[in-house]
Amino acid sequence: MRTLAVIGLGLIGGSFARAGKAAGMRVIGVDCCEQTLKQALTVLDEVSTEVAASTQADEILIATPVGTFGDIFTKLEDSLEERTTVFDAGSCKRQVIELATDILGDKVRRFVPSHPIAGGEDSGFLSSSAELFQGRNTIVCPANADLDAVERTHLAWRRVGAQTTEMSAEEHDEIFATVSHLPHILSFALVESIRAHPQKDIMLKYAAGGFRDFTRIAASHPTMWSDICQQNGDDILAAIADFRVQLAELETAIKSADGDFLENKFAAARDLRRTWRKTLED
Amino acid sequence: MRTLAVIGLGLIGGSFARAGKAAGMRVIGVDCCEQTLKQALTVLDEVSTEVAASTQADEILIATPVGTFGDIFTKLEDSLEERTTVFDAGSCKRQVIELATDILGDKVRRFVPSHPIAGGEDSGFLSSSAELFQGRNTIVCPANADLDAVERTHLAWRRVGAQTTEMSAEEHDEIFATVSHLPHILSFALVESIRAHPQKDIMLKYAAGGFRDFTRIAASHPTMWSDICQQNGDDILAAIADFRVQLAELETAIKSADGDFLENKFAAARDLRRTWRKTLED
Repeated sequence: MRTLAVIGLGLIGGSFARAGKAAGMRVIGVDCCEQTLKQALTVLDEVSTEVAASTQADEILIATPVGTFGDIFTKLEDSLEERTTVFDAGSCKRQVIELATDILGDKVRRFVPSHPIAGGEDSGFLSSSAELFQGRNTIVCPANADLDAVERTHLAWRRVGAQTTEMSAEEHDEIFATVSHLPHILSFALVESIRAHPQKDIMLKYAAGGFRDFTRIAASHPTMWSDICQQNGDDILAAIADFRVQLAELETAIKSADGDFLENKFAAARDLRRTWRKTLED
Repeated sequence: MRTLAVIGLGLIGGSFARAGKAAGMRVIGVDCCEQTLKQALTVLDEVSTEVAASTQADEILIATPVGTFGDIFTKLEDSLEERTTVFDAGSCKRQVIELATDILGDKVRRFVPSHPIAGGEDSGFLSSSAELFQGRNTIVCPANADLDAVERTHLAWRRVGAQTTEMSAEEHDEIFATVSHLPHILSFALVESIRAHPQKDIMLKYAAGGFRDFTRIAASHPTMWSDICQQNGDDILAAIADFRVQLAELETAIKSADGDFLENKFAAARDLRRTWRKTLED
């Protein structure tokens, strides 16, 4: 019976752990929160607050906020076995690879950076589900890993229902800065600009469906997103700069009441959004 | 049998017209698009491309983009009867009131500015539904209207299932600039910044749930939103300015990798968003 260890039992780690159980694996859960471990013990075979509890597993998924990876790599480095494959679920890859190379030394060959494109409004083990990754994409960045470890990582994500694609860490971080990290920053900033407003209460009273959808991601995990901003800062700042250009163009057009410009811009955005949505349905 | 005329048979007008039929009224639909009229004729009693067809009704709802209101007021002014109540569904109110006062003269007493807080990803008569307004808020701004006309407007919106609240046009426009118009601008600008990116195609390939929700409103009606930007420009620019302050603070913190600041900001945004969502469920 193969053993899976999952470090970090939030939405992603909890879902992967549940799917591991569903696939007949022995699953060890590691988390720093005792209450989470209590919840997880009803589903998993063994739980622990110690990263060391994971080192005997065949596979280890690291699913904590990326800011904790340095500490986890340090704890793993000593006792990691040659047969173990370590992969992660972090939302940025470049700095994680640098860190793994620095800390894991030769054992970096067993570490495969990966990123499942899945999430939800709610975080935590109680929101996790064995079906979370069904039909979702997972990005695998081979980086410095052995071919065997890369192959095992692909298989691990496919086992939980995901499709896998390889790309470089650089490409990954640039893409997700724009399509994921930037929208989160904008959504946080919008909610903060309402929170700072003297009319806050009445504004929230009349906020409706558009606001609800736009700000869903502002309910995301604060530590996770603070870590992402620190680890993928350069790409995020570049994406914000691109966004500012578009926002400034719209502002100028609003100031000069340039209806044609606005209508053309909005029509182009609508067309792109509609085409994109259609590809999802196909 | 009371007669309702609806000018503009998109999502909002079409839904109000359907609800009027469901309530047993005779309903006349006016739209500039022949195809829309063909669709509407299967549901309504009479359709026309001419605004004049509406002037014999007891109630007239104007549900076209706000940029067309001047033209419609001019066409109504001549033949509007004393017993008719005219109300609208526009997303901004101050400029509409000025326009109505200028054009309708003494008949402005029959015009009641109103705004249903309802919408959807898809526009057009085929997306409309008699249930769209059930449980939604509609803002009524009495402005220069007779008490009788204001009362009839409240009743008309309640007849289709909405709750009604009164506020001033100034308050309305400031609130909706922040909770509705600003998110739309940001969503349009994000989609446009992806459209302008050389990596556009691969970015869209990996855009996921966060992007989907964040950009739903970027599929909104381009003319309608161009009109809103022109009519509520000052309040929208003020809301963008407030937003920029928050965005700049986050950028500075990302540049200096100030994790504590970012985490505190994100936690505050998450708390506000969660509290707000809970009030929706109560």
